[in-house]
Amino acid sequence: WRVGEGWDVHALVPGRRLVLGGVEIPFGRGLLGHSDADALLHAITDALLGAAGLGDIGTWFPDTDARFEGADSGQLLQAVAAAVRERGWQPVNVDATVVAQAPRLGPYRAAMQDRIARCLGVPPDAVNVKAKTAERLGPVGQGLSIEARAVVLLQRRAGTA
Amino acid sequence: WRVGEGWDVHALVPGRRLVLGGVEIPFGRGLLGHSDADALLHAITDALLGAAGLGDIGTWFPDTDARFEGADSGQLLQAVAAAVRERGWQPVNVDATVVAQAPRLGPYRAAMQDRIARCLGVPPDAVNVKAKTAERLGPVGQGLSIEARAVVLLQRRAGTA
Amino acid sequence: WRVGEGWDVHALVPGRRLVLGGVEIPFGRGLLGHSDADALLHAITDALLGAAGLGDIGTWFPDTDARFEGADSGQLLQAVAAAVRERGWQPVNVDATVVAQAPRLGPYRAAMQDRIARCLGVPPDAVNVKAKTAERLGPVGQGLSIEARAVVLLQRRAGTA
Ligand SMILES: [Mg+2]
Ligand SMILES: [Mg+2]
Ligand SMILES: [Mg+2]
Repeated sequence: WRVGEGWDVHALVPGRRLVLGGVEIPFGRGLLGHSDADALLHAITDALLGAAGLGDIGTWFPDTDARFEGADSGQLLQAVAAAVRERGWQPVNVDATVVAQAPRLGPYRAAMQDRIARCLGVPPDAVNVKAKTAERLGPVGQGLSIEARAVVLLQRRAGTA
Repeated sequence: WRVGEGWDVHALVPGRRLVLGGVEIPFGRGLLGHSDADALLHAITDALLGAAGLGDIGTWFPDTDARFEGADSGQLLQAVAAAVRERGWQPVNVDATVVAQAPRLGPYRAAMQDRIARCLGVPPDAVNVKAKTAERLGPVGQGLSIEARAVVLLQRRAGTA
Repeated sequence: WRVGEGWDVHALVPGRRLVLGGVEIPFGRGLLGHSDADALLHAITDALLGAAGLGDIGTWFPDTDARFEGADSGQLLQAVAAAVRERGWQPVNVDATVVAQAPRLGPYRAAMQDRIARCLGVPPDAVNVKAKTAERLGPVGQGLSIEARAVVLLQRRAGTA
């Protein structure tokens, strides 16, 4: 068994799509970044890498690498999940929180969970996404950014050392 | 086995009681919220829900629901702990951090741990509360808010699938 | 099995050495604190204490105690790891994130991991350090501070109750 954690933040700006947990959410602004800037998937990706002792998302997918410009973070997460399995680990469950002052994310939680579970190759009930506001405090509370945090538990796959 | 995480923040304002970890703390200000705004219990509640795959505190106890106005967050945590057990999970341990610039929370740590353990129905040594300042940085450091974060480990209850 | 979490922040100021994960990093500023202010080692120390139910770093090493002025946080972590073992627990793995706008920490990740593993008495692959920026947002993003967060998994040592 091993545990991992991840945290991410991206600025919320006009003229970008808002993609969280692999789900596009209608909103006047979106997250700024080299890839699709999906803070939730990035936090989960980092938690998986961390639990498996495989480094961090910035090392795997440098934002200076043109291959990852506008990348679908779901594909990056899928690649990391495959690498984690190759090393002999299986994700047991993922729990995460998205902190956004707006828009309301509750209606998208189930769709995010399904998408994340598919990326990880785990049953839907192995993924839990929670949503909160920042109570109008700090950059997230002022609507300047969105944060996400995640934990993951791994177990040894049957038949691996 | 499953892992969960929770995070919460509430604004610190005049004219409210300060309740953290189910313990009332004498201080000139208190946390703002629909319930008693106990950020520590909310973070633990979210961690439990997350580990068990049961959603989030905002879905369980909407702050638009008059039933939860001024609610004792200890009762909400107890209800969630019961639901987690019904689903076949037992809390193994909880670890949490409260971040507040003031007041000093060290003297209240033991009482918070006892109260949380009673809400969860676990031995006192299964709960650990840590306290920190934010080093005068950001909204917490300026005394505008108090944050809390928590992780929880669950295991299958004997005799459940 | 038990899980723990830790979080820490220190202000980044001129005239101090920058020490993170027990590694001195050349940079014009350093972290402010009573000890060497190593936010990463402090977060890991708190996560270990939390998982073992042993309180928090502020109780163990009060910043009002002259013995810990300028202390090497690696020695504090080592002392805590020994106490955790005495209580019958063994660290399984540690995963952590350092959030700093500058300097770039990627080149120091491996050295931090080695140093932390030595402090804990675990194999190097049991420790994972991740590095991120705060996307220019908040005190960390403005270069006023550096934050760290960590999770740890413990298991019962063979031959202990
Ligand atoms: Mg990111
Ligand atoms: Mg709350
Ligand atoms: Mg510190």
